[in-house]
Amino acid sequence: MRFHQFLQVRRLASAGATTLIRRPTTGTALATTHPTISTTTTAPIATTVRTMAGSGAPIPELTEITDNVQRGNFATLADKDVAHFKQLLGMNFVLTEDLEGYNICFLKRIRGNSKLVLKPGNTAEVAAILRYCNERRLAVVPQGGNTGLVGGSVPICDEIVLSLARLNKVLSVDEVTGIAVVEAGCILENFDLRAREVGLTVPLDLGAKASCHIGGNVSTNAGGVRVVRYGNLHGSVLGVEAVLATGQVLDLMSNFKKDNTGYHMKHLFIGSEGTLGVVTKLSMLCPHSSKAVNVAFIGLNSFDDVLKTFVSAKRNLGEILSSCELIDERALNTALQQFKFLNSPISGFPFYMLIETSGSNGVHDEEKINQFIGDGMERGEIQDGTVTGDPGKMQEIWKIREMVPLGLIEKSFCFKYDISLPLRDFYNIVDVMRERCGPLATVVCGYGHLGDSNLHLNVSCEEFNDEIYKRVEPFVYEYTSKLKGSISAEHGIGFLKKDYLHYSKDAVAIGYMRDMKKLLDPNGILNPYKVLN
Amino acid sequence: MRFHQFLQVRRLASAGATTLIRRPTTGTALATTHPTISTTTTAPIATTVRTMAGSGAPIPELTEITDNVQRGNFATLADKDVAHFKQLLGMNFVLTEDLEGYNICFLKRIRGNSKLVLKPGNTAEVAAILRYCNERRLAVVPQGGNTGLVGGSVPICDEIVLSLARLNKVLSVDEVTGIAVVEAGCILENFDLRAREVGLTVPLDLGAKASCHIGGNVSTNAGGVRVVRYGNLHGSVLGVEAVLATGQVLDLMSNFKKDNTGYHMKHLFIGSEGTLGVVTKLSMLCPHSSKAVNVAFIGLNSFDDVLKTFVSAKRNLGEILSSCELIDERALNTALQQFKFLNSPISGFPFYMLIETSGSNGVHDEEKINQFIGDGMERGEIQDGTVTGDPGKMQEIWKIREMVPLGLIEKSFCFKYDISLPLRDFYNIVDVMRERCGPLATVVCGYGHLGDSNLHLNVSCEEFNDEIYKRVEPFVYEYTSKLKGSISAEHGIGFLKKDYLHYSKDAVAIGYMRDMKKLLDPNGILNPYKVLN
Repeated sequence: MRFHQFLQVRRLASAGATTLIRRPTTGTALATTHPTISTTTTAPIATTVRTMAGSGAPIPELTEITDNVQRGNFATLADKDVAHFKQLLGMNFVLTEDLEGYNICFLKRIRGNSKLVLKPGNTAEVAAILRYCNERRLAVVPQGGNTGLVGGSVPICDEIVLSLARLNKVLSVDEVTGIAVVEAGCILENFDLRAREVGLTVPLDLGAKASCHIGGNVSTNAGGVRVVRYGNLHGSVLGVEAVLATGQVLDLMSNFKKDNTGYHMKHLFIGSEGTLGVVTKLSMLCPHSSKAVNVAFIGLNSFDDVLKTFVSAKRNLGEILSSCELIDERALNTALQQFKFLNSPISGFPFYMLIETSGSNGVHDEEKINQFIGDGMERGEIQDGTVTGDPGKMQEIWKIREMVPLGLIEKSFCFKYDISLPLRDFYNIVDVMRERCGPLATVVCGYGHLGDSNLHLNVSCEEFNDEIYKRVEPFVYEYTSKLKGSISAEHGIGFLKKDYLHYSKDAVAIGYMRDMKKLLDPNGILNPYKVLN
Repeated sequence: MRFHQFLQVRRLASAGATTLIRRPTTGTALATTHPTISTTTTAPIATTVRTMAGSGAPIPELTEITDNVQRGNFATLADKDVAHFKQLLGMNFVLTEDLEGYNICFLKRIRGNSKLVLKPGNTAEVAAILRYCNERRLAVVPQGGNTGLVGGSVPICDEIVLSLARLNKVLSVDEVTGIAVVEAGCILENFDLRAREVGLTVPLDLGAKASCHIGGNVSTNAGGVRVVRYGNLHGSVLGVEAVLATGQVLDLMSNFKKDNTGYHMKHLFIGSEGTLGVVTKLSMLCPHSSKAVNVAFIGLNSFDDVLKTFVSAKRNLGEILSSCELIDERALNTALQQFKFLNSPISGFPFYMLIETSGSNGVHDEEKINQFIGDGMERGEIQDGTVTGDPGKMQEIWKIREMVPLGLIEKSFCFKYDISLPLRDFYNIVDVMRERCGPLATVVCGYGHLGDSNLHLNVSCEEFNDEIYKRVEPFVYEYTSKLKGSISAEHGIGFLKKDYLHYSKDAVAIGYMRDMKKLLDPNGILNPYKVLN
């Protein structure tokens, strides 16, 4: 077949072979291929946060000061409060020292000044904490794995941190229906491993899977690399248990794909970033894990060819397409420079795509992907690349994609944007931004989830400075808004983007958001300073 | 191959052949295979309603009287109101005569007494109508294709009917991203035909597709026969425009799979049955239409074999499984007796399953389905059946499934339930109910969307009588509730089930539903007497 002559396995091939090495796999190996922040469920995350955000990055100043935040009209933590919580939860689960890991965000951009971290062990304890805080007017920030990128999961001032880490159990997995029930603090990867024991997989996959919590994923409506196949969490999450600020437990659990009994309020807690309630439990529809997984990494000469290849993938790979990622040359090269352990099988192209298929029949899938690549090469859209079903090789390719965002923050300050744009205009903004920034920026690049129209635009520079900041913002939001894009595709609004919400939502919608907040959290104690101004 | 010897194409085969006739198809033919209520977009539906609900069924009494409904504290329509609306919409779109088709529900169970039907032509007119009605305290019922089964789309007393029929345009279909924007009053089948012009398909398919409106589908979170493949509408609907009771237009439109900008309020309008706002426009993610479609109709000896076959279908057909329907013997036989034009390729089994696959490669799909059926027969789980990819034959098989619900109401009174149950207990309730009803019932049967754990339990009798009613209700809801099932899987709550909502939602949840209603519709003018008591 023609593409065999063109595609080359470089460096990845164990014996320097130029033929394709394929092996249908259960895909289980993939579960361990993602970069991890922490592999234990209970370790403090401070050290890891520091490492992941670039080893040289300093501890930031307090955000309350740098961002001139006006503290809300909340009570101040008193000794009696700490004593109350110690009685409620036990000494071990009330932390008042070494709180840096809970106060600083993953990107080391936000630093709060919380004096208290609470670690309840069940829903009733979460409810008791919130009831007390609501009566005392103490502000609370719910925290999962603290891997968010918009400062949504850390305190801004002195909010009490409510860690969900101890609610970490997978309660049930039904292999017949594919429906799993899990506590909010379960680490995504652990949940997935448990699902895989009975032949299922969690439909959500993202770089932080080894430390992010499923409850945090749901609270932020996390996206990731499989949305192109399994859709977003509003489709996958069947039920939610949420504790409101008042301490009331809102039981919206359901173990069914079809349940039309009243208003579908669970969706208010999917993506509201802990500002309306604290998700404590959820049920999720898990597809069968695929018997066969293949990954292609291909080089292309233009964004036009990228688009054509995406359309071809949708048509020809159809139901087995499980990821469609884009990396531009500058993004790839930055990662390769920063992380010498990465090996790219191809080089020298302006664009790269990572295309993954997952299916129930390895032979069929191989035929489909070969046909897709052969056709793409014949039409001159795909220039070169590699295809593999070997778990180790797939892992190496995925690692490239996953280290790209980290490469950009390793030794630079990086303005990071997460936007949805119409596909036809998807990449223009990268070129436009490069021109706007000129020599002020060291790298202006784009990568992301092409299959979902989700671009991660990155502007790196030596260090933060006002001049480049003014070139970048609010231009990026205005540009996105003009194209009717979304100024936050998958990361959310959190603290960092709340001033820009109006670029994607009008005044009527924002007004009703405020009303919802008032209704569900009348004293505004839940995750203040986030989402809404 | 082994199963070829066992499977027989009976009656369906054009030349009496016993070999399988297969042909990969675009699937387009399927779009016309569903039973139609009306194929025009503007015709009054009264006659059709009467026909579909059983030609012999009489016009029901006014529901206000039969159900002893206490009319809400609304204003009464005055001449000045009619004059106002005529000025607003034009004479042709303000109807005051021949309103039976708008007043009577599809099942001919509910009959309202509306004196006015309004047919706005755009969102601004919808907004102007509601603003006026809100100020005047005139109650309004939004109406799409009026195919609902719980009395949600007809007036109960004298509410003004707000028909969305003129908002019927498909505004855009993007073949690259698969995202379509459509007005609420577009008939589902018309929407699907438009999507198919560019190789896409609407992910929703149900028996009433030729007359139901996409806006009504969204407002009721309609399910249907493809949820097993494409999930529910909370996943597929990307954006919604809704007009609130106050006349405010809530723009929650988005053309992206990923858009995390604030609370995901659009979901409040998906499945709230027009009680929180009137959906006027929406965007939907449409998958590529499949190049190959196959349908299997198989006979099985026990429900245990049905379950095993479902698990095998999920594992072996995996990503190409697009429908998994169950019909029991009594349901099938009733349809065959009532509709002589139906032909079942097999007979004599207690259970039948209709399994559909849709994929991008006909050869691959055929191999998968042959393997699946061969294995099932070898294990003794599948007894007999037929598989076909021929559009005409697939149509004949689908017609059987789709006429089943109509067969049961053709010459009988029928208590119809739409419940989600754990799969292991899925069918027990049919046997239990049959025993409870004894000779009072003519047919007690079950069919439905096995792949979604969604059972349609039907109890037919000569005519409604209190004795059988008391045997059936509230037992069916109590039984479902004990198994933590859903008392309304896909039909909604509407008027008919509002007294039973508490079997699936607790007091805290219902309390917050009331708060949401109060927030979005402070005067309660929108679809009163529905969902909430």
